[in-house]
Amino acid sequence: MNFLEEKIIQNGVIREGNILKVDNFLNHQIDIEIMRQMAYEFQRRFKGETITKILTIEASGIAMATLLGLIYNVPVVFAKKSETMNSTDTKYVSQAYSFTHKRMNKVLVSKPYLNAEDKILIVDDFLADGEAAHALIDLVHQAGAQVVGIGIAIEKGQQQGGSKLRAEGYHLESIAIIESMDWKTQTIQFRNQEKQEVGNAKLKASWV
Amino acid sequence: MNFLEEKIIQNGVIREGNILKVDNFLNHQIDIEIMRQMAYEFQRRFKGETITKILTIEASGIAMATLLGLIYNVPVVFAKKSETMNSTDTKYVSQAYSFTHKRMNKVLVSKPYLNAEDKILIVDDFLADGEAAHALIDLVHQAGAQVVGIGIAIEKGQQQGGSKLRAEGYHLESIAIIESMDWKTQTIQFRNQEKQEVGNAKLKASWV
Repeated sequence: MNFLEEKIIQNGVIREGNILKVDNFLNHQIDIEIMRQMAYEFQRRFKGETITKILTIEASGIAMATLLGLIYNVPVVFAKKSETMNSTDTKYVSQAYSFTHKRMNKVLVSKPYLNAEDKILIVDDFLADGEAAHALIDLVHQAGAQVVGIGIAIEKGQQQGGSKLRAEGYHLESIAIIESMDWKTQTIQFRNQEKQEVGNAKLKASWV
Repeated sequence: MNFLEEKIIQNGVIREGNILKVDNFLNHQIDIEIMRQMAYEFQRRFKGETITKILTIEASGIAMATLLGLIYNVPVVFAKKSETMNSTDTKYVSQAYSFTHKRMNKVLVSKPYLNAEDKILIVDDFLADGEAAHALIDLVHQAGAQVVGIGIAIEKGQQQGGSKLRAEGYHLESIAIIESMDWKTQTIQFRNQEKQEVGNAKLKASWV
C-alpha cells in the first residue's frame, strides 16, 4: 500500500452512495505532509515531462496545485466555477456536471492565463466520471495548449473517468485507485495493489 | 515599496468601482514566487507566535494558506461557502456578504476541524469591509479556539475592515495596504510607505 492508500485506510470514511469522505486530510482540512508527498509522487511519475503550468479547478485542487507549482517553479491557474465581477477578460468556458452539488457548473479560465505554448499538468483531488477533468482538458485545447498529464489523488476506479481518459491517450496518474468499497463494512480495495485482507483494509477512523 | 506593492504596480489593474484586479498573480493565476515571499513575510511578522492551524476561506486564500501550512508544519483548513453532499458532520456556520458576488455567503467549517486548543492564523487574499475575516473569527470563537493573527495580502485601507479588526484588538498584518487608487490614471498609493510620485506608482501592466 502506498502512503495515500494508508492514509485513506487510516482516516477515510465510506458513506452510502459510493462516497469516500476524506475531508479531514484532503479537501477541507489539509494534511500538509500528505499533500507534500503527493506533489513529489507526481513529480516522480511525470519525470522527464516539460511542464510550464499547473491547472486545477477551485477549490479542492488548489493546495496540491500550489505545491506542484512550487516544485516545478511554474505558475498555477485555478479554473473558476462562476464569473466574478472583477474580471472583464474574455474567458475560455466549458461545463462540468458536479455530482457533489448535483448541478452543471461552468468552468472558466481567463484567456490571458492559458497560452498556445503552454504544456499543462492538470491536477485534481478526485476523478470519478471525469467531468471536471474533461472540462479542464477542453479549456486547454481551446487555448491551443497541450495537456502533458493529469494527476489525480484518488480515482474511483469503478466509474468511467479513468478508463475514458486513458483510452483517449492521456497520461493519467492516480495515486490511489479505488477498485471497490463497501460502506456497511467500511472496507476498501485499491487497484494495482496486492488484494488486501478485509481486516487490513478496514477504515480506522475513530470518529465515524 | 515592498515586493507585493511592486508586483501590484507591475501587474495590477485598477477598475472602476474601487476594484483592484490582481488575478494574474494572486487569485486566478498564482505567481508561486510572490506567494512564497508572502508566506515568509507572514512568518516574519508573526514571529514568536504559536500557531497550530491555518484557516482560510475557499478559494483564493488556499494557495497562501498551503504555503503557510508548509512553513509552520500545521494543518490547513479552508472554510466552505456551500454545504456538500459528502459531509454529515455538524458544522460551525457563519455568514459573510460577498461584494464580488453581491450576495450573502454561508461560511462553514466542519466541527472536527476546529478545536478549543487551536491557535489559529487566519489568512486571506483581500481585506475590504472585513466580512470574510469576521465570519472566520466567528467560526474560531464558536469552536472556543484562539485567533493568533490575521494575515492579509492586500488590504483596502479606504474600507473599514482593517480599522475595525485593529480596534477589536486583533493582530492584523496586511502586506500591502492601499490608501487610495484611481482607475482613470491607474495610480495607487500605499500606506506606511513614502508617498510615491504618481509616475512611480502608475500601474505598468501592458495588457490593461
